[in-house]
Amino acid sequence: MSQTQRSDARDDRHVAVHVDTEGSDLRVRWADGHVSRFPAIWLRHNCVCPECGSTETARRFLRLTDIPRDVAVESARLNAQGEIAVAWKPGGHVSSYDSMWLRAHCLSPPEREHRRHKPVLWHARTNNLLSYESYPALQDKRARLRFLERLRDYGFVILTDVTCEREATEKVAGVVGALRMTNYGIYELISRPTPQLVGDTSVALAPHTDEPYRHNPPGITFFHVLAQSDEGGDSILVDGYHAAEALRARNPAAFHLLSTVPAGFHRTLKEGRAFYATGPVIRLDREGHIEGVRLLDRGTAPLDIAEGDVAGYYDALRDFLDYLYDERNHLVVKIAAGEMLVFNNQRLLHGRTAFDPTVSHRHVRSCNVDLDEFYSSLRVAYRELGREEAYMVLPQGAGT
Amino acid sequence: MSQTQRSDARDDRHVAVHVDTEGSDLRVRWADGHVSRFPAIWLRHNCVCPECGSTETARRFLRLTDIPRDVAVESARLNAQGEIAVAWKPGGHVSSYDSMWLRAHCLSPPEREHRRHKPVLWHARTNNLLSYESYPALQDKRARLRFLERLRDYGFVILTDVTCEREATEKVAGVVGALRMTNYGIYELISRPTPQLVGDTSVALAPHTDEPYRHNPPGITFFHVLAQSDEGGDSILVDGYHAAEALRARNPAAFHLLSTVPAGFHRTLKEGRAFYATGPVIRLDREGHIEGVRLLDRGTAPLDIAEGDVAGYYDALRDFLDYLYDERNHLVVKIAAGEMLVFNNQRLLHGRTAFDPTVSHRHVRSCNVDLDEFYSSLRVAYRELGREEAYMVLPQGAGT
Repeated sequence: MSQTQRSDARDDRHVAVHVDTEGSDLRVRWADGHVSRFPAIWLRHNCVCPECGSTETARRFLRLTDIPRDVAVESARLNAQGEIAVAWKPGGHVSSYDSMWLRAHCLSPPEREHRRHKPVLWHARTNNLLSYESYPALQDKRARLRFLERLRDYGFVILTDVTCEREATEKVAGVVGALRMTNYGIYELISRPTPQLVGDTSVALAPHTDEPYRHNPPGITFFHVLAQSDEGGDSILVDGYHAAEALRARNPAAFHLLSTVPAGFHRTLKEGRAFYATGPVIRLDREGHIEGVRLLDRGTAPLDIAEGDVAGYYDALRDFLDYLYDERNHLVVKIAAGEMLVFNNQRLLHGRTAFDPTVSHRHVRSCNVDLDEFYSSLRVAYRELGREEAYMVLPQGAGT
Repeated sequence: MSQTQRSDARDDRHVAVHVDTEGSDLRVRWADGHVSRFPAIWLRHNCVCPECGSTETARRFLRLTDIPRDVAVESARLNAQGEIAVAWKPGGHVSSYDSMWLRAHCLSPPEREHRRHKPVLWHARTNNLLSYESYPALQDKRARLRFLERLRDYGFVILTDVTCEREATEKVAGVVGALRMTNYGIYELISRPTPQLVGDTSVALAPHTDEPYRHNPPGITFFHVLAQSDEGGDSILVDGYHAAEALRARNPAAFHLLSTVPAGFHRTLKEGRAFYATGPVIRLDREGHIEGVRLLDRGTAPLDIAEGDVAGYYDALRDFLDYLYDERNHLVVKIAAGEMLVFNNQRLLHGRTAFDPTVSHRHVRSCNVDLDEFYSSLRVAYRELGREEAYMVLPQGAGT
């Protein structure tokens, strides 16, 4: 799917030129030559006429179990609005489908691949990687969509002109979606002599994802820098998708283990919390595309896998960590005071170089927004523009 | 794992009687006759001495990549405190392991099965199914743990004496864990003439899970009844685990499809949100145990699966829905004003019988708590009691 292409009435993808039946099903030929076949039960269940009701609002009156098992398209025709009207048998119900909606949901292999999001995989050596956007400029809808798309495609964006006001953290997050508040609230990461969490200390932090001990770890994470150390304290970023694909190419057996055997992560907090979740380090969709990454070596819970699988699994994990910990694979960038790093925590691994808290104060406010909310913002923006990307299939993250 | 058994120093499960090496690994013989083998790399990586640091706090200094590939147990001995001390080669590091912790993490098949939670599957006809707990009594720690265990084992509990004060909703939820706030906030479900969501209308609602259009749907859900209709408005409950196991027995092919092929769910809100998530209706762990259920027929998004799989998938879904919609499989219970239904939304399907809003007012306040928080509360309670159940492996829910 071209990510800049505008859809309009003349887009050949969305113009049906011929409709007929094939067995019980609907067949549609499009102006670009593609032919779609929509299975009868699928199409009937997706009728959203006032009588059936809408599945998007759940004000729905038709149940799947109300549909006859032998439902079939009796006839189909194109109407003047470019919609496709279908008469059903038995029963005689009539449905009408928007042509762009139909094309966007075609079940053929090339169309399913077409609507799947293609992230831009990157390495520290990739050119033109750093993307800076000015926060005040995001008031413009087009700039906001460009920002959301960059975040979707690369997994991170750096925002400038955020200011050092504390409240800016939540305000900027609101551009992406509703805040997800957990027991941490808005997390204040301040350099201190007596640390409570490693993030508070001044030692270097190896690349990792945050809070993998939750079933659903943070999605889009915001690091708002209010004060920055003069020396060190740089952010380290690694594209987990790229690193995982590199592992798949280099060591397919290790990739297989890390994408199928569940790792475990845990966290105990003095306040009286004990979290634990398991999930593969590399999460794949059913067809093998990478959806997310979950990895924090220093928060690993005891692996709960068959004894005989342990040695092989550890070899695989070590291979992946060797790559992630290798400085040649680190994108190092200093986020200045008044700037904000926005990144997908279920894709990117992040770390931090060491700094000296005795000569420099460092203060980062951090919060996050679920991937649900981020993707919702993208969909709503595309819908307003009438663009087919509203139906893009996006990676679902680190899963469990 | 006996769920009432107390652990103490004399529990034979936790008394090591002999330790030695087997190849590179540690072998432990326990007072109950069981023998555990702990692979060297697994055991070394789980060292939490002050020098290595703790993985539970992530104040961790040892990286996996610091451990020699050929690490091996050089010697092992039982010390006076019943701990197991291990000396490592190469390098000479010394680790010490708590014996209960070791036993609770034994990787043998019977021990892995032992620590896996066994839910009590139930059907509407199961005897003694309804469990009422008095909310004020939960101030007692033992009563609170019994309540949490009942919720874990059966998937629901009804709380009495909650009162009709609005604030009670959040207060009771706090007994389970920190609230999860989404765009809905505390949801107010009030019978109205012009509905915004189906939940607001007075029609019957077929059994479903809430918000399957989120990657991570609500976990523990609270329905606090402030006003109840005289006729109808009863809650319908179905144990999704039981229904799924019944499907597995009745129609293994359908079970296979529903547990492997991702369904899709969506929700569009006028305020400007468009959610979409996919995941299997029945979520299994890697070994085939049911972890969760995700299903809302009236919120189903267009299935995005290969065209040839559609008809078979719909047949499977229809079979499952036929069972769920059959009144003989419904546990029907009326939650009175001042009471609260607490249930696991990633296990139970819930519905509601119709009621007449012209003669009766109905008001339910609803909120939810992530499974993470619920499980954390259980773990913390067990840890305080020194019980091995702190390491019970709990189902991770509906996943994606």
